[in-house]
Amino acid sequence: MNSPEGLAHQVMRRIDRLAAISETPGVLTRRYLTDEHRRANELVSGWMAAAGMAAHQDAAGNIVGRYEAAQGTGPALLMGSHLDTVVNAGKFDGMLGVLCAIACVEALSGAGRRLSYPIVVIGFADEEGVRFGTTYLGSRAITGTLDAETFERADADGISFRQALSDFGLDAEDIGQAAHPGSDVKAFLELHIEQGPVLEALDLPAGIVTAINGQTRLSVAITGVAGHAGTVPMALRKDALAAAAEGVLAVETICAGGADVVGTVGILRTTPGAINVIPGDVSFTVDVRAREDGDRRDAVAAVIRAIRAGAEKRGTEAKVTVFHEATSAPCSPHMMDTIERAMISVGIEPTRMPSGAGHDAAAMSALCDVGMIFLRSDGGISHNPAERTTEEDVVAGIKIMLAVLDQLEG
Amino acid sequence: MNSPEGLAHQVMRRIDRLAAISETPGVLTRRYLTDEHRRANELVSGWMAAAGMAAHQDAAGNIVGRYEAAQGTGPALLMGSHLDTVVNAGKFDGMLGVLCAIACVEALSGAGRRLSYPIVVIGFADEEGVRFGTTYLGSRAITGTLDAETFERADADGISFRQALSDFGLDAEDIGQAAHPGSDVKAFLELHIEQGPVLEALDLPAGIVTAINGQTRLSVAITGVAGHAGTVPMALRKDALAAAAEGVLAVETICAGGADVVGTVGILRTTPGAINVIPGDVSFTVDVRAREDGDRRDAVAAVIRAIRAGAEKRGTEAKVTVFHEATSAPCSPHMMDTIERAMISVGIEPTRMPSGAGHDAAAMSALCDVGMIFLRSDGGISHNPAERTTEEDVVAGIKIMLAVLDQLEG
Repeated sequence: MNSPEGLAHQVMRRIDRLAAISETPGVLTRRYLTDEHRRANELVSGWMAAAGMAAHQDAAGNIVGRYEAAQGTGPALLMGSHLDTVVNAGKFDGMLGVLCAIACVEALSGAGRRLSYPIVVIGFADEEGVRFGTTYLGSRAITGTLDAETFERADADGISFRQALSDFGLDAEDIGQAAHPGSDVKAFLELHIEQGPVLEALDLPAGIVTAINGQTRLSVAITGVAGHAGTVPMALRKDALAAAAEGVLAVETICAGGADVVGTVGILRTTPGAINVIPGDVSFTVDVRAREDGDRRDAVAAVIRAIRAGAEKRGTEAKVTVFHEATSAPCSPHMMDTIERAMISVGIEPTRMPSGAGHDAAAMSALCDVGMIFLRSDGGISHNPAERTTEEDVVAGIKIMLAVLDQLEG
Repeated sequence: MNSPEGLAHQVMRRIDRLAAISETPGVLTRRYLTDEHRRANELVSGWMAAAGMAAHQDAAGNIVGRYEAAQGTGPALLMGSHLDTVVNAGKFDGMLGVLCAIACVEALSGAGRRLSYPIVVIGFADEEGVRFGTTYLGSRAITGTLDAETFERADADGISFRQALSDFGLDAEDIGQAAHPGSDVKAFLELHIEQGPVLEALDLPAGIVTAINGQTRLSVAITGVAGHAGTVPMALRKDALAAAAEGVLAVETICAGGADVVGTVGILRTTPGAINVIPGDVSFTVDVRAREDGDRRDAVAAVIRAIRAGAEKRGTEAKVTVFHEATSAPCSPHMMDTIERAMISVGIEPTRMPSGAGHDAAAMSALCDVGMIFLRSDGGISHNPAERTTEEDVVAGIKIMLAVLDQLEG
């Protein structure tokens, strides 16, 4: 049972149980500070306790389990990933990293073993940023880097982050209690699915992340004039949707022209939204990411220029707001080397690669050294119900993590 | 009180009372077969009774008032317009035509006068097509031209037209009872706001409609592949929103290049709709109208080709459905001439113009001769809370309608 194979099998069954906790029947959607968030925390808390950890929910809604060291209370190794999901998500993104970390502690406790350092496993409460449009709320609470204005951000129903915390039974004023002092932390180790096609192409189960690409998020509001679809000549229109469409195509063209740059318009809303009315207001989001911060900034500037030009050409107004920006976050050379030694020790060929996706490790790099292990994604598919990582690759992941724990004993 | 001035003043006050009946506080939205539809019918029914008419709600939810002839029961003159609205509508569109028709009957009954023919005033229940995405449901019930499949159309909540009728207390099986035999109808006269800028540019209060432009409505569904916004390289994406954006711009470009052609994408929805997910499914509507049916068909064919090409280029699939098509509907020369004589008789310079917007008169032309009077719209603005027609122009409209009633006595 406590072999990597037995633990991986248990992880796969637990993933199905977690995936059944969803806001929408039939698909997986679990946003921050919802009833489903609470139910997922309760389930994970029980698994942490079964693995021999003392578990509690912190002031930001993260679920945190602690496995003490053999002796004393020196700096802890933090491990984990996130429990929230995108809309209509896959079931491996985030959850797999939390469950593999718990599995490692279960392997230790099952063998009656404690290490020279404590282990803290964290199920982060918000990484995807679906509800409040800004990522890493869970891990930023852990690192103590949430700023005051974040609490006033509202979700699609107009509920502020502050209010949502209160509705969940938490208090924004207490959020500082979730922070971990850097002196208490040895490092952070995250296992996550790759969410891209690189490992599959290399025919390898796992990889070592070198850096998490930087990211800029924009919100764009185009204001035109609503009018009757039949009576306003084309030349006299101020069509907010036509202007927005030009922006969408500019994101596609500009980012395709950059080196290792990707850009996405994931949300686009038209108002009033009737067949026979020219849209007067359209809002959309832009997400741009790149390996090099300079390339990302160049692409964002070009996108903003194109959006403004498309709006102006149609007599509409574009308001562009940069509401999230993260520079590229490098993983620590020490942790990369440690993971590499661990992979070699369990007979898996090590390979290094950057991460195109954001991860809690990027936020955690403000607090401590971070290391990340990627597991192969079937077809590179993610943020999609077809997302899949095989049980065999999960066995490899648990083996590597356990070997990292041993390496860090030295 | 029963002078055109007094009646116009009453019409303006009644318009405010009707506009207060809305599904959404603060803005005007009143869709077919809602509680607000019922309340508007009750209010208008009371005004019909006060004007000396026998009023009833018909099998399609139209409100119908009858003012008998001096003698006998020959073919009736039908008058009226619609009581439903678009989302966030202006208060003159449709409603003004119903209230002016009632005002004309009130002028007759107040003077103790009956004509040689009966008058039937109709407040049509659905002209905009907001709820079921297909227009003229009210007037098509009157003309007996609703087809069986229409009853299975569903609204945004998945409620079918058939079910919505039932929830309203009506029965789809009885819809034939709403039909008026052609032998019972003399003609249909509709007064409506222009919803465009022509009369304002001519400095005239009213105009004579020559024809209602034809219209084609498409629903488009683009299917791509949802994926992670950070990890899927631009070249490997199947982005449904980028394909749809190309479609939106094609509608704009192609229709701007046609003669008296307009095209609008009024609704566009992205799924799953999250900042960090490449949209896998996007649906949108296209509304194309033109004076000449051939020009409209050419534009629609070019739009469909462009949508298909934009989808194919990105490895996405486009499904295009034509769900509404109406040929250009000419007004009757006899009714145009009658309105022209009426305008001259009350000292208003007659001018003739086509209608870029669809109107109940287009559907009614399947049943009988139709005539339409346009009243000037401030700034040509419509389908917008800023929609406005002055009380002075409403006086002109009532004078013209009363003069038409006299002309038809001949």
